[in-house]
Amino acid sequence: MTVSEIERLIQLLARLPGLGPRSARRVALQMIKKRETLMLPLATALQQAAEAIRACAICGNLDTADTCAICRDPERDGTALCVVEEVGDLWAIERSGAFKGRYHVLGGTLSALDGRGPEQLNIAALMDRLRPGDAGAQPVREVILALSATVDGQTTAHYVADRLAGTDVSVTRLAHGIPVGGELDYLDDGTLNAALKARRPA
Amino acid sequence: MTVSEIERLIQLLARLPGLGPRSARRVALQMIKKRETLMLPLATALQQAAEAIRACAICGNLDTADTCAICRDPERDGTALCVVEEVGDLWAIERSGAFKGRYHVLGGTLSALDGRGPEQLNIAALMDRLRPGDAGAQPVREVILALSATVDGQTTAHYVADRLAGTDVSVTRLAHGIPVGGELDYLDDGTLNAALKARRPA
Repeated sequence: MTVSEIERLIQLLARLPGLGPRSARRVALQMIKKRETLMLPLATALQQAAEAIRACAICGNLDTADTCAICRDPERDGTALCVVEEVGDLWAIERSGAFKGRYHVLGGTLSALDGRGPEQLNIAALMDRLRPGDAGAQPVREVILALSATVDGQTTAHYVADRLAGTDVSVTRLAHGIPVGGELDYLDDGTLNAALKARRPA
Repeated sequence: MTVSEIERLIQLLARLPGLGPRSARRVALQMIKKRETLMLPLATALQQAAEAIRACAICGNLDTADTCAICRDPERDGTALCVVEEVGDLWAIERSGAFKGRYHVLGGTLSALDGRGPEQLNIAALMDRLRPGDAGAQPVREVILALSATVDGQTTAHYVADRLAGTDVSVTRLAHGIPVGGELDYLDDGTLNAALKARRPA
């Protein structure tokens, strides 16, 4: 017996992050109900996105052009470079609106367990960007390591900071502390510790 | 500024049940990472399913043929008809493997609030199926009302039972009681009440 179109659709939907077999069925039924307004537009959007989206040759961001909108934007501050693990992190910082420089997407973290070494990450390209280039380009003065506060994230941050030690860019990292809106009660010891150590005059 | 392919994809994904903007972004990124193995196959599966899937002309189940596999299957018991609200309910009963008869999908419940009357449901077709037909077809002897234990579901069950009162089919409904594996502590009063009323010799 061949798997029917419905089964095939549900199997693929169940592989999306956050969806299991049950929610995949729910999603499939909902889409069949909204065939014209949801299912077919989504099929087209997936096809178009798969064809059009590529990684920016400079920073690794996803865009439909070879150089992404952020790297092309002359208004952005080329002297500050924010190093992130994944494109999702870049989007999160962009949504916050707190950063007006450029980005560099590593494409993951170093990981001894998963056997990811520096060659697997986008680190060589980062070093290239920091080299003094054409007279026209702004030289990078600050590299902000916006990596996860996990073991792998911090290992990666250390590694990148080491690699940049010889250059004259200043290397910074995101502050640790209490999340805004966070209650002390619910915070883990590590965060409380970091927040205490980094205390500032009120 | 036109919305980019990525934004468009995320907007459509966010309209799926159970996904919000945040999980839609996560799904989109995951798919872009797995372009060949997930994104393009899903686009194709959606397209094919949208073209192939239709409602069964007899029972309202979804299938790729005009008459669904269950209605076509000569092994299924044509004398028992299980009335459900939605195709998802039909799938749930099929997964349980507890029913070997045929189905009838109403396409929803009566709802005074949403203004859904009997004409909006697949009830006329149900009455047609109960009429004595060709000599070859098995006459329906039992209609099982497998409708939700909600106000609208029970209103619909009452309505269908009333409509069937004149015919010589027996009308039954699913038992209420404690879900298998359920703890008494966590059950609502209504369920406990129903389970007590329907108690049986041990």
